[in-house]
Amino acid sequence: MKRNERIGAIIKILSSNPNKIFTLNFFTDKFDSAKSSISEDIVIAKRIMENMKLGKIETLSGAAGGVKYIPCVSKEDTKLLMDELCSKLKDENRILAGGFLYTSDIMFNSSIIKRAGEVFATQFSHKNADYVVTVETKGIPLAVMTADALNLPLVVARRDSKVSEGSTVSINYISGSTDRIQKMSMSKRAVKQGSRAIVIDDFMKGGGTARGIVDILTEFEIEVVGIGVLISTKKPEKKLVEDYISLIFIDEVDSENKKIQVYPNNNL
Amino acid sequence: MKRNERIGAIIKILSSNPNKIFTLNFFTDKFDSAKSSISEDIVIAKRIMENMKLGKIETLSGAAGGVKYIPCVSKEDTKLLMDELCSKLKDENRILAGGFLYTSDIMFNSSIIKRAGEVFATQFSHKNADYVVTVETKGIPLAVMTADALNLPLVVARRDSKVSEGSTVSINYISGSTDRIQKMSMSKRAVKQGSRAIVIDDFMKGGGTARGIVDILTEFEIEVVGIGVLISTKKPEKKLVEDYISLIFIDEVDSENKKIQVYPNNNL
Repeated sequence: MKRNERIGAIIKILSSNPNKIFTLNFFTDKFDSAKSSISEDIVIAKRIMENMKLGKIETLSGAAGGVKYIPCVSKEDTKLLMDELCSKLKDENRILAGGFLYTSDIMFNSSIIKRAGEVFATQFSHKNADYVVTVETKGIPLAVMTADALNLPLVVARRDSKVSEGSTVSINYISGSTDRIQKMSMSKRAVKQGSRAIVIDDFMKGGGTARGIVDILTEFEIEVVGIGVLISTKKPEKKLVEDYISLIFIDEVDSENKKIQVYPNNNL
Repeated sequence: MKRNERIGAIIKILSSNPNKIFTLNFFTDKFDSAKSSISEDIVIAKRIMENMKLGKIETLSGAAGGVKYIPCVSKEDTKLLMDELCSKLKDENRILAGGFLYTSDIMFNSSIIKRAGEVFATQFSHKNADYVVTVETKGIPLAVMTADALNLPLVVARRDSKVSEGSTVSINYISGSTDRIQKMSMSKRAVKQGSRAIVIDDFMKGGGTARGIVDILTEFEIEVVGIGVLISTKKPEKKLVEDYISLIFIDEVDSENKKIQVYPNNNL
């Protein structure tokens, strides 16, 4: 195999498996090449990714050593994604009865959501989390894409406890968007006590649902080390959780004049 | 930029955006290179992917022409995935009360589910579908990964109609695993009449849920052109839908002797 063939294959394999460590031996076996050649290939692959701002390739030394790809979305690409989201969200046809916005087409658009998941992975990569946690339903694609980018297991809290979840822990919480008491349950098999979690959801208004996830994780003595939502409302300014990252803010939905005011998170 | 740098970047960009067409101009602009050089790069990238069985790169001529990456899981890699799934599923600790199996850790493992989604994309790539459709909850990660690999929008039917879905169509169906009447609803905004859909779900026993999805899609005059499930039970042999693809079959769950019999789909 020629050098450029090996480099192409290395980049494909690493970037399809974010944050998964591959040993040098894996590639020497796969390509039937010397360790020294593979090492040079990796140096070049690393430079390509960095120059093109396509993420990072990191080499780890030691017994558990090897090489891995870390998704890392540049500021420019984050801005592009947020601008695309804002322009989609401004569409007046999204306005539903009661001032709600239809967003399922965005939340279930894998191409958008995959990039958003990589943005959260970029923001939370240093948090040493053990899980990505969400509650059903609309946040699941975003959470699974974030989990994939971080190479972490996804945990999905359910609205009802299901027989297929085994024994569960349940809590009641108040959802901000409906102001009603809701139930959330989590399988005991899904998580380990004393671990760390990143919470991901599609939408935050009062923060009640995110607070509910934090509370149910507290029952398992799990620390929440980051909260990310795709969209949050500007009001109420005080949410039931602190320190969350929102990609997009909704300022106002004016049903009468059919105007939706949204803006991107300029801190990202 | 050197050739091997361009090839590496082309492979990363294409494979991160399955089934999305990129024009040659996109790459000539990005790399500030001549069209002839990029064309040669693509020929090499194509050969790398084919030789290494990492998927296909296809060039399309004409006005809407360009180049795209098509995920294509080899028979060997499909077998590896199915064997990994079987060995995970055989774990006796999965047995829950009533002979149910705990599978959430698998269904929410993005690395496994991404590969399974690519297997379904490989199987259904020629079906010219417009949507991937599932019903909440556990099949969503698999469906979103399939949708991503096929570059199709995902549509998620809900158990209840939500205010955030706008006007919906609802049906009642009988779930095979619980034998109870359940409700399923789909947003009118999510789909267009006369289109084609691939149905994806995590698990099939009697096929009642899949039948429900087919029925609700019929209300929208949408043709189901493929059904894929990760796991199905051997019994009942006659399901309520025909022509489905299952990666794994469960033959028997013997709660008393703690034995689970599973086997892979040898036709894939």
